[in-house]
Amino acid sequence: MIKTATAAFLAILTSLTFLLFLYSPTTPKSSYHSLFISASLSSNTSISRHLHTLTRRPHVAGTPANAEAATYVLSIFTSSNLRSRITPYHVALTYPISRSLTLTPSPSSPPVNFDLQQETYPGDPYADVAAEVVPTFHAFAKSGDVAGDVVYVNYGRLEDYETLNKMGVNVSGAVVLARYGEIYRGSIVQIAYEEGAVGVLVYSDRKDYGGGGGGRWFPEEKWLPSSGVQVGTVYNGLGDPTTPGWASTEEECERLSDEEMDQGGDLPLIPSLPISGADGEAILRAVGGQVAKDDWQGSGNAPTYRVGPGPGAVHLSYTGKQVIEKIENVIGVIEGEEEPDRFVILGNHRDAWTFGAVDPNSGTAALLEIAQRLGKLQEKGWKPRRTIILCNWDAEEYGLIGSTEWVEENRNMLASRAIAYLNVDSAVHGQGFRASATPQLDELLKQATQQVKDPDNSSQTLYQAWVGSGSSPTIGRLGSGNSDFAAFVQYIGIPSADMTFGKGYPVYHSMYDDFVWMEKFGDPSFHRHVAVASLWGLVALWLADAEFLPFDYTSYALELQKYMKNLEVEILDKNINLTPLFKSIEELKEAATIINNQRREIEQQNNVWPAVWKKNRFKVREVNDRLMMAERAFTDQDGLFGRSWYKHLIYGPSRNDVYGSESFPGIDEAIVKAKRLKTAESWKFVQHEVWRVARAVRHAAKVINGELT
Amino acid sequence: MIKTATAAFLAILTSLTFLLFLYSPTTPKSSYHSLFISASLSSNTSISRHLHTLTRRPHVAGTPANAEAATYVLSIFTSSNLRSRITPYHVALTYPISRSLTLTPSPSSPPVNFDLQQETYPGDPYADVAAEVVPTFHAFAKSGDVAGDVVYVNYGRLEDYETLNKMGVNVSGAVVLARYGEIYRGSIVQIAYEEGAVGVLVYSDRKDYGGGGGGRWFPEEKWLPSSGVQVGTVYNGLGDPTTPGWASTEEECERLSDEEMDQGGDLPLIPSLPISGADGEAILRAVGGQVAKDDWQGSGNAPTYRVGPGPGAVHLSYTGKQVIEKIENVIGVIEGEEEPDRFVILGNHRDAWTFGAVDPNSGTAALLEIAQRLGKLQEKGWKPRRTIILCNWDAEEYGLIGSTEWVEENRNMLASRAIAYLNVDSAVHGQGFRASATPQLDELLKQATQQVKDPDNSSQTLYQAWVGSGSSPTIGRLGSGNSDFAAFVQYIGIPSADMTFGKGYPVYHSMYDDFVWMEKFGDPSFHRHVAVASLWGLVALWLADAEFLPFDYTSYALELQKYMKNLEVEILDKNINLTPLFKSIEELKEAATIINNQRREIEQQNNVWPAVWKKNRFKVREVNDRLMMAERAFTDQDGLFGRSWYKHLIYGPSRNDVYGSESFPGIDEAIVKAKRLKTAESWKFVQHEVWRVARAVRHAAKVINGELT
Repeated sequence: MIKTATAAFLAILTSLTFLLFLYSPTTPKSSYHSLFISASLSSNTSISRHLHTLTRRPHVAGTPANAEAATYVLSIFTSSNLRSRITPYHVALTYPISRSLTLTPSPSSPPVNFDLQQETYPGDPYADVAAEVVPTFHAFAKSGDVAGDVVYVNYGRLEDYETLNKMGVNVSGAVVLARYGEIYRGSIVQIAYEEGAVGVLVYSDRKDYGGGGGGRWFPEEKWLPSSGVQVGTVYNGLGDPTTPGWASTEEECERLSDEEMDQGGDLPLIPSLPISGADGEAILRAVGGQVAKDDWQGSGNAPTYRVGPGPGAVHLSYTGKQVIEKIENVIGVIEGEEEPDRFVILGNHRDAWTFGAVDPNSGTAALLEIAQRLGKLQEKGWKPRRTIILCNWDAEEYGLIGSTEWVEENRNMLASRAIAYLNVDSAVHGQGFRASATPQLDELLKQATQQVKDPDNSSQTLYQAWVGSGSSPTIGRLGSGNSDFAAFVQYIGIPSADMTFGKGYPVYHSMYDDFVWMEKFGDPSFHRHVAVASLWGLVALWLADAEFLPFDYTSYALELQKYMKNLEVEILDKNINLTPLFKSIEELKEAATIINNQRREIEQQNNVWPAVWKKNRFKVREVNDRLMMAERAFTDQDGLFGRSWYKHLIYGPSRNDVYGSESFPGIDEAIVKAKRLKTAESWKFVQHEVWRVARAVRHAAKVINGELT
Repeated sequence: MIKTATAAFLAILTSLTFLLFLYSPTTPKSSYHSLFISASLSSNTSISRHLHTLTRRPHVAGTPANAEAATYVLSIFTSSNLRSRITPYHVALTYPISRSLTLTPSPSSPPVNFDLQQETYPGDPYADVAAEVVPTFHAFAKSGDVAGDVVYVNYGRLEDYETLNKMGVNVSGAVVLARYGEIYRGSIVQIAYEEGAVGVLVYSDRKDYGGGGGGRWFPEEKWLPSSGVQVGTVYNGLGDPTTPGWASTEEECERLSDEEMDQGGDLPLIPSLPISGADGEAILRAVGGQVAKDDWQGSGNAPTYRVGPGPGAVHLSYTGKQVIEKIENVIGVIEGEEEPDRFVILGNHRDAWTFGAVDPNSGTAALLEIAQRLGKLQEKGWKPRRTIILCNWDAEEYGLIGSTEWVEENRNMLASRAIAYLNVDSAVHGQGFRASATPQLDELLKQATQQVKDPDNSSQTLYQAWVGSGSSPTIGRLGSGNSDFAAFVQYIGIPSADMTFGKGYPVYHSMYDDFVWMEKFGDPSFHRHVAVASLWGLVALWLADAEFLPFDYTSYALELQKYMKNLEVEILDKNINLTPLFKSIEELKEAATIINNQRREIEQQNNVWPAVWKKNRFKVREVNDRLMMAERAFTDQDGLFGRSWYKHLIYGPSRNDVYGSESFPGIDEAIVKAKRLKTAESWKFVQHEVWRVARAVRHAAKVINGELT
């Protein structure tokens, strides 16, 4: 009898212990989130130290200096208690071997040789490593030796050639001189090639980039020194060009031959060089012909720009070497406690054309700050519900190579498990917060910015600064190919965001993008860096810890309606039926309402039942999976017409400017073509593209609804 | 004090109640599974009744009779407690309007007209509805009026034309006479067209189909009556040909024009007709020229076959109408209790060329039996862990249309949630169990057949009968396009199986495929039907209820090794590097071992911890998701070269026989081409296809491993 009683007592005791174990009070996630953005965990001095260390030497992809930077990132990840590793790829990169540029101002005058050097200045703390700066060049430029009269083509856009055409100027056989500032340099070269040019020079006009004339070459103001040159890639694809659509995991993996790459159309077929504002102006002085339009002119005491051709002629010679080089992504992981197989991914690249104080290591410094803050949260007992992955990409500057190869290698796992990707490239290049996102994240960004202080005015939130005098902030979209979100959004369809402070900045991709510039102009107090780290990390924490994913597809539907309205205007009187698109967006809107209601219903049940109640836990996962997978449904296996790597039918790069983001890129391109060709067939193709988008939107609605037909 | 004690007591009581609730004893799943296949739940009379009802009238897709059959299926589903619905599509179907065939045995003899009728017989219980049987035709045949000398082309395979070629006979401008029995009829027509023929006649030779000569037209033996004709489609694609890659959800959805379809290459471009054995023989008597090879000859008292051309000439006229017709899939669902968002799908089609007693309603009868047995299990308290979906497809006979449209419409949900697809087309056309599957299901099929009795010898299991005198059963693969698994395997990459009893049977696609034939020859006792229902349902139950998915990827790796060995032989001395493929298969094998160990580890932990222990429950799901998604990784977005709808790189239809299943179809096709062209480039393409398969296998290994790089 006593034995039975004891047994019963023990049984009861065990039960109670078990229940206590299940319901043991834990610190709520939200207090960890508050801690994450609190002053006690934030450190502008530590961020500044990270940036200083990362930017000690120029660190182009594939160099020992960049491997050294990778080691630093890895060490901070590891010491912050992240499971960390380096993931290498073997990719095609190019480096300059020799460049020369000669101007013959007129047939009678002697040729002038340009030295193509960016100059150091007295007291330059980086003078001792200036020799390590890569000579100014265009990555993936075609090697070659060309000569021709110069034609000035303004920003090198399609419309600029139309203007020239109307003026009776054609660039066939000429070397064109374009200025940076409106479109992607790879697009400048591509368009010039299509227009018949034999070579391309691209300079930074002081109208757009400032830059002192004369002997003033120290950046005392936020100007690009007159010898400053914007280096950069002219590759129009993304990822290793020798392995389109697959990962360059080994040196001896399958690779396209040079001929196959040339046929692919993403690599330039004529040589090009970037040059300084001073050199550009010198060439412009030798260009005669008609005076260019007002908005083609320079600023201040610039000479009058004429379009040519000639009489100035240039001789441009460029030899680059293409090599298969090892690049290194650094990956750090905090495994989710409850849902280790759901990923929130933060990414920033590490490789820089020169010192990279702005681009990209302001972002890297913020990423390291996040790693350290998360390390401290872990020490205090926090574990994320879902897995958080910090990625530090390599070879972004060559064409988003590190991130693209990684996404291609891990595409199946990412497609079924990635919740969101949060990108920060250059975290700070000045004042003014800006963000782009796939629209289901809009609301999340608005809420998160309300939790972070404006680094430039502590009496208001970042949200208030962002909104400014408007009623709601402007949120960009992620169709362009200008940073590492591209593969995540455009190849897999992962909800993504991109954040930064500041817009244009003069020293972009020049050797003057160094710690001195950042301290002096970009972010003297490093409080903007701190704000980026806080916001970026907070968004990640919310995504990782929230029971329900904070995705709002009503925003998405409203955005799509906006694009459809624009479309209506564009195709007025063209007999294109937009009804299927209209209907599908309605379906998406309804689905968004349905899933919001389901979420609310489960939340109410969860208040009644203990959290451990099993059915609801799988129900929550089921709803979250629909929220996660809906974005995938906007992608189509066939991809954009003629650019099949780009799978996303809502957002993609503009055909004539990889940095330009289009909504409905397939429809848009078809319309441009139809308006040019003016054939019934080409308009029928527009209708086909409308149908495709409508079907993708409907697929997304179905995923959100969660019902099979 | 007393209050506290009472409160404590109540607390303890509540705890205990809660624990009891968590651990309340439930009937183990396995006893429901035993019950499912027990005699008490099985009923051959009920299956036979279903078959009788379903086959009362001929029920071609798009006809009222087939809609009536759909209503019957829906009613059984509903009364078995399945959440049921009809999912319609609006698809292109064709029906014959007029056919005529005339033979001019020699230039001097008068033309003979064929009546092209299948005859009823005295006492035929279906005589009153014989008029409802669709006139013999080829679905999607080209309408046209052609005449020409006859050339006999044996089975119409590529190699048959090579033989003719060697004999100096060419078919240019001729009407070819081919016999059924080796390749898909759509392939017969396609090859004939490519060889230059202007029309095609396909007959059933009594060597292959039996068939009485003279006046004996009642099937007293298992022969096709001499007037019997094999109707069927000659469409070489799958799904609605007007909506390739998307679903025909509305009448007014986007559709290809006739010209676009003709350009697509999947629809025949010359007219064709199926004819009876008697008519075929009559034509052969008028064909002169060289005597055909021995294995081209007929059987018994057949005339000597000669190849022609002529002197017999035929005039073939066919007019069909293509219409957009509503078809109806019937879907019945039992929602999973724990994982409603994981699907085990059973499918069989309903539409038949005539009465469909074998093809397909022996399978439909089995499906209805399963629905009823599952209904009874539910009454006894069983609920599946995962969702079970019963699908009864429409318009399979026209080109797997009902299933393909459904898969296309629901592709996102299926891609992320479908565990397996289990197909039964004709359940019974004779004796001898046969199965095909993606290899991770091999072991499951072997175990399930050990639980089911051999319907033809109750002293042994179905497994023993299946193995026969061998050491292990032969399991086919699912690359062909001959039934509704195609879209599941080849478009999405869902682990699938296909099961049946019997091999060839004479009345296939003729009007003699009726209940009388089934009762007399196919399955007089209906025990084979019962066995199919038991096995099919048991496999589904195991997949739906098992904690861990019973998938074995070691089998898959071993299969792939076999294909690689065959490949090695095929490309001996061709300087193709198979190392990447070899390595990837090794990676798959290792991954299979790793996941098996992980599973065992979790199972051991589960023995220690109560089932409710939360981490493990998500861990189990995580492992299962990897097992489920690995098959998807064998698909590639670009699909097979020139046939991009086919995404699976391991299994696909043979280029020259849609019914033929290839392993590594892309590599295989590239080799065939390279052996013909003998150029370095074409061999380089073989290497490219090897790389693609190697990458797909590696992706699958990565998914099974579950680690990002």
